[in-house]
Amino acid sequence: MIKMNQPSADISYRIPFADTDQMGVVYYANFLIYFEMARAELMRSLGLPYSKFEELGFGLPVLEAHCFYHKPAKFEDFITITATVLELKGVRLKVGCTVKRGEELLADGYTLHAVIGKDGRPIRPPVELLNAISENSCEKDAGQ
Amino acid sequence: MIKMNQPSADISYRIPFADTDQMGVVYYANFLIYFEMARAELMRSLGLPYSKFEELGFGLPVLEAHCFYHKPAKFEDFITITATVLELKGVRLKVGCTVKRGEELLADGYTLHAVIGKDGRPIRPPVELLNAISENSCEKDAGQ
Amino acid sequence: MIKMNQPSADISYRIPFADTDQMGVVYYANFLIYFEMARAELMRSLGLPYSKFEELGFGLPVLEAHCFYHKPAKFEDFITITATVLELKGVRLKVGCTVKRGEELLADGYTLHAVIGKDGRPIRPPVELLNAISENSCEKDAGQ
Amino acid sequence: MIKMNQPSADISYRIPFADTDQMGVVYYANFLIYFEMARAELMRSLGLPYSKFEELGFGLPVLEAHCFYHKPAKFEDFITITATVLELKGVRLKVGCTVKRGEELLADGYTLHAVIGKDGRPIRPPVELLNAISENSCEKDAGQ
Repeated sequence: MIKMNQPSADISYRIPFADTDQMGVVYYANFLIYFEMARAELMRSLGLPYSKFEELGFGLPVLEAHCFYHKPAKFEDFITITATVLELKGVRLKVGCTVKRGEELLADGYTLHAVIGKDGRPIRPPVELLNAISENSCEKDAGQ
Repeated sequence: MIKMNQPSADISYRIPFADTDQMGVVYYANFLIYFEMARAELMRSLGLPYSKFEELGFGLPVLEAHCFYHKPAKFEDFITITATVLELKGVRLKVGCTVKRGEELLADGYTLHAVIGKDGRPIRPPVELLNAISENSCEKDAGQ
Repeated sequence: MIKMNQPSADISYRIPFADTDQMGVVYYANFLIYFEMARAELMRSLGLPYSKFEELGFGLPVLEAHCFYHKPAKFEDFITITATVLELKGVRLKVGCTVKRGEELLADGYTLHAVIGKDGRPIRPPVELLNAISENSCEKDAGQ
Repeated sequence: MIKMNQPSADISYRIPFADTDQMGVVYYANFLIYFEMARAELMRSLGLPYSKFEELGFGLPVLEAHCFYHKPAKFEDFITITATVLELKGVRLKVGCTVKRGEELLADGYTLHAVIGKDGRPIRPPVELLNAISENSCEKDAGQ
């Protein structure tokens, strides 16, 4: 179930030579790095940078990653990567991502994460994250 | 539909520091590189290394990539990555992958590819690939 | 011989998890990627993006890369990478790079490149590059 | 000063698509990953895998990395990377590396490391490393 008004954040990125492969396009695994860049920005935008999240004793290991490739990204492209909280349910967090060049959708997908504590076991997310997500949603709700 | 007797191939790999992240485990995007290593081995084992495939005027861009993370992989782990042809149907090739440390399943998933020609458009796979897959399947069938 | 008033350019970059290793710092090879990001920006700032440089039939393969690591870079650090033309002499281009976090120097070094033509052989740089570098230097000279 | 009979070790590696860039060759930063793969093998061959080294409370951060690129490495090349202890002097360890395809030298270079303790400060290397290096040298001496 995808809800409206999910918190989201985006970053811009200029594609370096490093990310290309000999087909002359961005190597497919790098899109998961782009996803992570935007997820980290999303956490920062929620007032809970991942480094702070870790300090609080939590982790967000990836359980699943899915990427759909629509059009190739190329060297020197200036892309925008957007991450959106799709769902936070129990100990699971699902984050959607899109990679665009201007209005063109190059790739999209999502990652599913477990919220874990210091012992590596699943644990309820910190109130900071729950609040950040609900506040952020509310703010957006209020704005409509 | 997953069929029996699919051609498969595997490679071994010792995990370098480069692949880890600050959680002390292999960074999640790297598993797609592991998938690719095994896919390339699979093509070689079919007598059709990817470089030859390209020389014949074909390409295999990735349309989708899916990875399920079960257990973390760590620095210096000696892992085995296996790629298997799950399906070759029309202009689509689906390849399954597993990443194991000994008997432990660390991750699995699959990639979906389009077979394209020099003009970048979908095209029937070369007979070399069709033959390689059917011969390989037959050999295995015969052995059972 | 290092001359004054060399053209230079810089970019900013937020360090993703992807770049770290299990020592909790940026993996050392990634600094060469940072160098390249700034070199590409340098070429763009000279009005000769690398993609255009290639279209003109030229290449800039790396002959040497040297990096000196002063302080570790960490996840979420916001760094500035600066590339400077140190020398363009005959068919050789030497580009210096620094990686800073605010005023702190994290790493520096340089890369040495050959200017090559379509046949892969060393060739005099295109006038566009020579002009860009001398004009850029002149502008800076004029400004002092 | 480079001494004879330095301990060395090598590994083999099949180049994946992931390592190439749009020039159709291995991206230059990846050679530092190759260096690290061979360094890790060198430590293992000395009976002191890096993970054990870390358990003993030591670290080997890189102070300098230098790479000289002679010939391009390509997709599917089967390369051999060799790491050699060039010098262990005080708290500094210098390791030389070569990357070859058969007899062809593709790249070489070296990394300079500090031996550090848990507090991050330079410290004399563990006797295990000193012994491993001297024993290994002696064995080789004896063999001549």
